[in-house]
Amino acid sequence: MRDLAPAGLKESDLHPALGEPELDSVRFLNEIMKRHPGAISFAPGAPHTAHLDDLDIGALLDTFRAHLRERRGLAPAAADRLLMEYGPSRGIINDLVAGALRLDHGIDVPDDAVVVTVGAQEAMLLVLRALFASAGDLLAVVNPCYVGMTGAAHLLGIPLVPVGEADTADRAGGSGGDGMPGLDRLEEACRRARAGGRRIRALYVAPDFSNPSGVRLDLATRRRLLRLAAQEDFFLLEDMAYGFTAGPAEGLPTLKSMDEDGRVVCIGTFAKICLPGARVGFAVADQPVRGADGTTRPLADHLAALKGMVTVNTSPICQAVIGGMLLAAGGSMAVIGRERAVTYRRNLALLLRELDRQVAPALGAAPPVTWNRPAGGFFVRCRLPVRADTALLETCAAEHGVLWTPMSAFYVGPGGDREIRLSCSYLDPGEIREGVARLAGFFGTLAAPGRAAPPD
Amino acid sequence: MRDLAPAGLKESDLHPALGEPELDSVRFLNEIMKRHPGAISFAPGAPHTAHLDDLDIGALLDTFRAHLRERRGLAPAAADRLLMEYGPSRGIINDLVAGALRLDHGIDVPDDAVVVTVGAQEAMLLVLRALFASAGDLLAVVNPCYVGMTGAAHLLGIPLVPVGEADTADRAGGSGGDGMPGLDRLEEACRRARAGGRRIRALYVAPDFSNPSGVRLDLATRRRLLRLAAQEDFFLLEDMAYGFTAGPAEGLPTLKSMDEDGRVVCIGTFAKICLPGARVGFAVADQPVRGADGTTRPLADHLAALKGMVTVNTSPICQAVIGGMLLAAGGSMAVIGRERAVTYRRNLALLLRELDRQVAPALGAAPPVTWNRPAGGFFVRCRLPVRADTALLETCAAEHGVLWTPMSAFYVGPGGDREIRLSCSYLDPGEIREGVARLAGFFGTLAAPGRAAPPD
Repeated sequence: MRDLAPAGLKESDLHPALGEPELDSVRFLNEIMKRHPGAISFAPGAPHTAHLDDLDIGALLDTFRAHLRERRGLAPAAADRLLMEYGPSRGIINDLVAGALRLDHGIDVPDDAVVVTVGAQEAMLLVLRALFASAGDLLAVVNPCYVGMTGAAHLLGIPLVPVGEADTADRAGGSGGDGMPGLDRLEEACRRARAGGRRIRALYVAPDFSNPSGVRLDLATRRRLLRLAAQEDFFLLEDMAYGFTAGPAEGLPTLKSMDEDGRVVCIGTFAKICLPGARVGFAVADQPVRGADGTTRPLADHLAALKGMVTVNTSPICQAVIGGMLLAAGGSMAVIGRERAVTYRRNLALLLRELDRQVAPALGAAPPVTWNRPAGGFFVRCRLPVRADTALLETCAAEHGVLWTPMSAFYVGPGGDREIRLSCSYLDPGEIREGVARLAGFFGTLAAPGRAAPPD
Repeated sequence: MRDLAPAGLKESDLHPALGEPELDSVRFLNEIMKRHPGAISFAPGAPHTAHLDDLDIGALLDTFRAHLRERRGLAPAAADRLLMEYGPSRGIINDLVAGALRLDHGIDVPDDAVVVTVGAQEAMLLVLRALFASAGDLLAVVNPCYVGMTGAAHLLGIPLVPVGEADTADRAGGSGGDGMPGLDRLEEACRRARAGGRRIRALYVAPDFSNPSGVRLDLATRRRLLRLAAQEDFFLLEDMAYGFTAGPAEGLPTLKSMDEDGRVVCIGTFAKICLPGARVGFAVADQPVRGADGTTRPLADHLAALKGMVTVNTSPICQAVIGGMLLAAGGSMAVIGRERAVTYRRNLALLLRELDRQVAPALGAAPPVTWNRPAGGFFVRCRLPVRADTALLETCAAEHGVLWTPMSAFYVGPGGDREIRLSCSYLDPGEIREGVARLAGFFGTLAAPGRAAPPD
């Protein structure tokens, strides 16, 4: 049966989203990790497993069921069933999520402005689908960009407009990568789109330690961005994933908490703060939408309707796991996040320290390898003097036993050919030290005089 | 903050999928059920809760974790972590699903032909997205059609071609609604599409007791359909949701098990057999797809890649719940399904018997209300002598305390204005008896001479 393909099915017969290079990159990374099980991998952006080992799924479900009985007045059998049956597309822990956003972020929206989704990924897909109604609607993204957002746009056929990040002064021992002076370019892109009869409908931005580049927007840039969104009439799709890793008293307000005229739709995930296996995320969309009959419902209602066409509803079992964690933390995401942030801040500081200690001295005055110094998040961006493609990664894995992610997969259009992403979230301190030692050896071969750089 | 909508956001600014009438219908049903909590509802197609009350989620997770340790050789901590971390987009219970399909249905595909999805809904979205690559690709659906499939098509902007079901001789005491003599119409639709420079890329069909009409394809029709798919070069998207409700020795082979040249992509769900709250479904797509480099991968690989853009992966916690159920049933879906089918067959037989007993005698020789007699599934279709819209439903709920689903929401294009769907899956026998008594009273008002039928 399997040898016969109807009409000889070819990859080019399938949807063009499947031809996007980031898919090959993901596949290649998975394969190379399997081929080099002994390599130290700076590739995965997954949360550290230490925080998972303490979790007891059964106990979390019990906590949530007790909440259903005691606070929502459900009979025991009804509480048990709520986890097993279909549920509303909008979710069953919307009150807890809205409560946490209020408590932790000063984002004050009613429960019905929240949609609980299958990870941030589904939230991205739903928000794009709702807001992008015509072929002339363009999505601007800060470039390089998280592949989940570009993937969702490819799947829906939404054209992308990359807006370059600041050319921050990355160097060994250099300053951080704050700010996004690409705002002028964004304004120009809006004008160009309008001149061509199209429009920038939204900008996707992760203001806090973005994946992949670790960049953070300073407060002034956040304000300018909100003003620009109002001036040019576009939405801001704010990805909150890594904000929790900011140091004590170093947190900056989310765009959503500064949003005075409904420009911001928030996208969040519990994967990094709680656990990825629950696959629970959310969108916050309190924008009122006027129907043909004059009534008004929040944009979140429409996202929930679209969710009915994607996953119907987020598993109530999974929502109960996250609900149980929130309840155990007094209703706060930040309480959970603060504890976990200790690990990530330690790892990031160690990675930067080890790069300074083991790599920088070997590089001399005109370093051919530079990196940025994010103040939080999971990621550090390195610039190499050579093309950082999968062939180089293969060599690095085989000869030096260390893995990283080529950055070009994160760029919309050309870019990042000589950049790599180092993630420190999944590793232990010993692995980071040894991994940087291996990187230093690898970088040394790139810097060695007489070694020809591969053609770019 | 909430009173300000950017540029006065209107429903018409959002994606057109949100304007589809079935969404209003779903919303209306939810609202009317809340407004009439005492009404007996023949609306929900959800599985009966009796089968949920025996389930112990914690115990099922333990069963699956034991399997990971004992059969897959994972250390205890690794088994625990597998449920909490990210996982492969294709799933972690693919071997169990493939094993059950082999055991229960004679569908013999390798594990890597299976993608585990967030319910059948995500499987529908992924299969459509992969196969529909150009604006000239049309999706044929048997009309009336499950709204999950039409919804996914609307979301992706895929044009629909409705193919009418047989005009079966529904009547009180009449024969079943077997067969789909719409095949001629389907062939004609293929020709018409080709003449217009387009093509029917696939037909969505639920061969066993389809939602909403309960129709089942007989064996000869299944064979003709497979031949037609080969002749006209289209795929069959086979929805397996209700096949398990066939009586002992009454099961017909799935299209996939009869598929000799890779025409069939199977879509399944564990929502009805196991529990909806796990949100686990699957697609079976063993078709080889040739890449530009000459290598071949199953279509399922491409579905998994697209899944990365929709939900990343199906929660391993949820997969473990289903995996635990399959393991406890000796690896068989059919073993679980057979036990549950007893309830549904009892309910369906009772619903038909009560309609015969309470409704038919009152109708006389020229019955203005008729219904079909499905041999399985959750649904019975009734035809009324008046327009069965939400206004009539509102009257019926208020005056007779019984609810049903207007069928027009399931029709692509016009149709079903005088039809309703009765679902018996969620009710107990006493509720079915009393519900039919209330329906009889309601039907009586429609048949009463002198009562003007609402305008059609």
